[in-house]
Amino acid sequence: MEYIFSDRISSLKPSAIREILKATSDPEVIAFSAGNPAPEAFPVDDIREITARILRERPVEALQYGVTEGYDPLRRRIAEYIKSRHAIGRDFDSVMVTSGAQQVVDLACKVFCNEGDTVVCEAPSFIGSLNCFRSYSVKLAGVPVEADGMDIDGLEAVLAREKRAKLIYTIPNFQNPSGATMSLPKRKRLYELAKARGVMILEDNPYGDLRVMGEHLPSIKSMDTEGIVIYAGSFSKILSPGLRVGFACAESSVISKMTVGKQTSDVHTPMLNQMLVDQWMETTDFEGHIKKIQAIYARKLTLMCDQLESRLGGFFSFHRPQGGLFVWGLLPEGVDMPGFCRLAVQKKVAIVPGSAFMVDENERTQAVRLNFSTPSDENIVKGVSLLAEAAAETRAAL
Amino acid sequence: MEYIFSDRISSLKPSAIREILKATSDPEVIAFSAGNPAPEAFPVDDIREITARILRERPVEALQYGVTEGYDPLRRRIAEYIKSRHAIGRDFDSVMVTSGAQQVVDLACKVFCNEGDTVVCEAPSFIGSLNCFRSYSVKLAGVPVEADGMDIDGLEAVLAREKRAKLIYTIPNFQNPSGATMSLPKRKRLYELAKARGVMILEDNPYGDLRVMGEHLPSIKSMDTEGIVIYAGSFSKILSPGLRVGFACAESSVISKMTVGKQTSDVHTPMLNQMLVDQWMETTDFEGHIKKIQAIYARKLTLMCDQLESRLGGFFSFHRPQGGLFVWGLLPEGVDMPGFCRLAVQKKVAIVPGSAFMVDENERTQAVRLNFSTPSDENIVKGVSLLAEAAAETRAAL
Repeated sequence: MEYIFSDRISSLKPSAIREILKATSDPEVIAFSAGNPAPEAFPVDDIREITARILRERPVEALQYGVTEGYDPLRRRIAEYIKSRHAIGRDFDSVMVTSGAQQVVDLACKVFCNEGDTVVCEAPSFIGSLNCFRSYSVKLAGVPVEADGMDIDGLEAVLAREKRAKLIYTIPNFQNPSGATMSLPKRKRLYELAKARGVMILEDNPYGDLRVMGEHLPSIKSMDTEGIVIYAGSFSKILSPGLRVGFACAESSVISKMTVGKQTSDVHTPMLNQMLVDQWMETTDFEGHIKKIQAIYARKLTLMCDQLESRLGGFFSFHRPQGGLFVWGLLPEGVDMPGFCRLAVQKKVAIVPGSAFMVDENERTQAVRLNFSTPSDENIVKGVSLLAEAAAETRAAL
Repeated sequence: MEYIFSDRISSLKPSAIREILKATSDPEVIAFSAGNPAPEAFPVDDIREITARILRERPVEALQYGVTEGYDPLRRRIAEYIKSRHAIGRDFDSVMVTSGAQQVVDLACKVFCNEGDTVVCEAPSFIGSLNCFRSYSVKLAGVPVEADGMDIDGLEAVLAREKRAKLIYTIPNFQNPSGATMSLPKRKRLYELAKARGVMILEDNPYGDLRVMGEHLPSIKSMDTEGIVIYAGSFSKILSPGLRVGFACAESSVISKMTVGKQTSDVHTPMLNQMLVDQWMETTDFEGHIKKIQAIYARKLTLMCDQLESRLGGFFSFHRPQGGLFVWGLLPEGVDMPGFCRLAVQKKVAIVPGSAFMVDENERTQAVRLNFSTPSDENIVKGVSLLAEAAAETRAAL
């Protein structure tokens, strides 16, 4: 049969990076291409013990249907945690549990955007979110990312032009892929602009706790006196991505609509997974755990950046990020960027071409993204050395 | 702030049943309103042991990101299981793991329907699926359900009229809410009609293994020589709904598109949950387990139907279903059906007004839906007796 797929799904072309990501399943290839948290950061013993206790003491609750909003003790605990740790959440707000933060992005768009509306996003931005927006047949309007985050003058111009702008999507901390962190003055201006224009902000903060240097900055949601910010949080980077537990904090009527949207998507997030996160938050030394994983990420980030500077200096120019999972940098003008990525894969190290993160996938870029959390320390050194080989060959051929 | 929500989400009005379903959270209320599997059917000991083993032997795999299509050993195992047990799956088909069967419904609609297209469904049908279709701004065209399933002459007329029909949605076994099972000749005619018209079939089979009497009938997917059937299966009713593991079997290019759609929804179904289902299927005596839960459901179904006949005969007329979770029946003409449901809640027993399942929610109906899997045997007897009290009062007031 000749299938006629929907317009929304047909617009999602198999991406150029899929080819390269496929290479990562080859165990011989060093994956600088992934976004996996460091496996040594998983609190395996705690998870084992807590899971056993839940299945011993409350098996039926863990295995039965739950409510769409999420497991109530976990919702309350998240609300307390973001309030005390990040000053997020006012009386008009509420919290829902989602199947990862990706689902917050999906539900925010589902609830606010009609086909043909505009989502304003950072350019470059996270490919999973860009494709999610595309799947709603919205128009994407990109605003360049600078070293201190989104170009707010650019944002102002875009908002003045895009009459149907409904959402501004931002990853303010250690942005994926650029690694940039938005400055405090920019956060304030972004909030004021959105308020003046009546546009919702979707603040995606998966990496916020993974700061390894510099000072903590307040989230945009913490400034939200009007209920215009939907905050997306996740346990993927601090506990485990495989459990798929994230959350949204937003004004209560927005959460109600997102709940209706989630009901038709997956009914609810698995109960065992929610109870596990709840009990882990209750019993673990949370601050101690965060400090421990920050130390792991600081070591890996420093190792990769040092290696890149010493082995690829002059070929790969980048800003050292203050946290997160990624280093983003530019190859020299004149170098064939996709060709370099292909050469890297031949040498058994996978990196992601920056074009994957462009709002317009055909836009030319010299950027590539490298991840330091997935590979072992040994493979970080080895992988950069393979990239240096590829760089030398590329230079010689210029 | 005055929120302007999307048209798709605004069309999902808070349903009339929400009020009644809320009453179910009152522990004093006997819930004939739910759709929960019987908790005594959960293989708790097996789940406890398997989960412990996974977290002991392969913790990183269970906690790390997985691929969107699903955990490969589970996909293969499901493919073998549906092939050997239900003769489902040909060379052109493949299997993906989803976050419950609800997500199969969501992805099928996402992949095939543009706004304004038509989804043909049974009337009445499962409210979760109806709302899912509504969330894509499609037109719903209902076909009446008869004692032996969808009225196929009615379907033929609808397909002739609806030029933009893209999907035919059916629950052929123990349909929710009607309890009806589609006869074999009707399954064959439905398939031939869809083939002739080039319309996809979405066959939702959450209850297929819960047959407690009568003969097994082949699924529509087992007749699918053309790749026009998307089969939705689930572990919710045979293992645990709280784990949220379901699956789709469809032609490979359809599964590819659904995978792209899932990537932007929730990235993947939790790894621990998938590995648990996989290991449970490997180590459990599957046929023995199915027989065991069928015995539980047979007992509960028989108990409720016997009680209804002896205590509510003449007030509640119904066909005894051959399986599933629900009894569907009609109140006498002249009785105020929603009023009877409210009176029942006052008497501490919750039932669902049939209007909740109508394609047109404003359509008048005398039907109500009763669930026998959630309450204990004792509460089945007590609940029906409370309904009998409500019936007597209702009759006296006529």
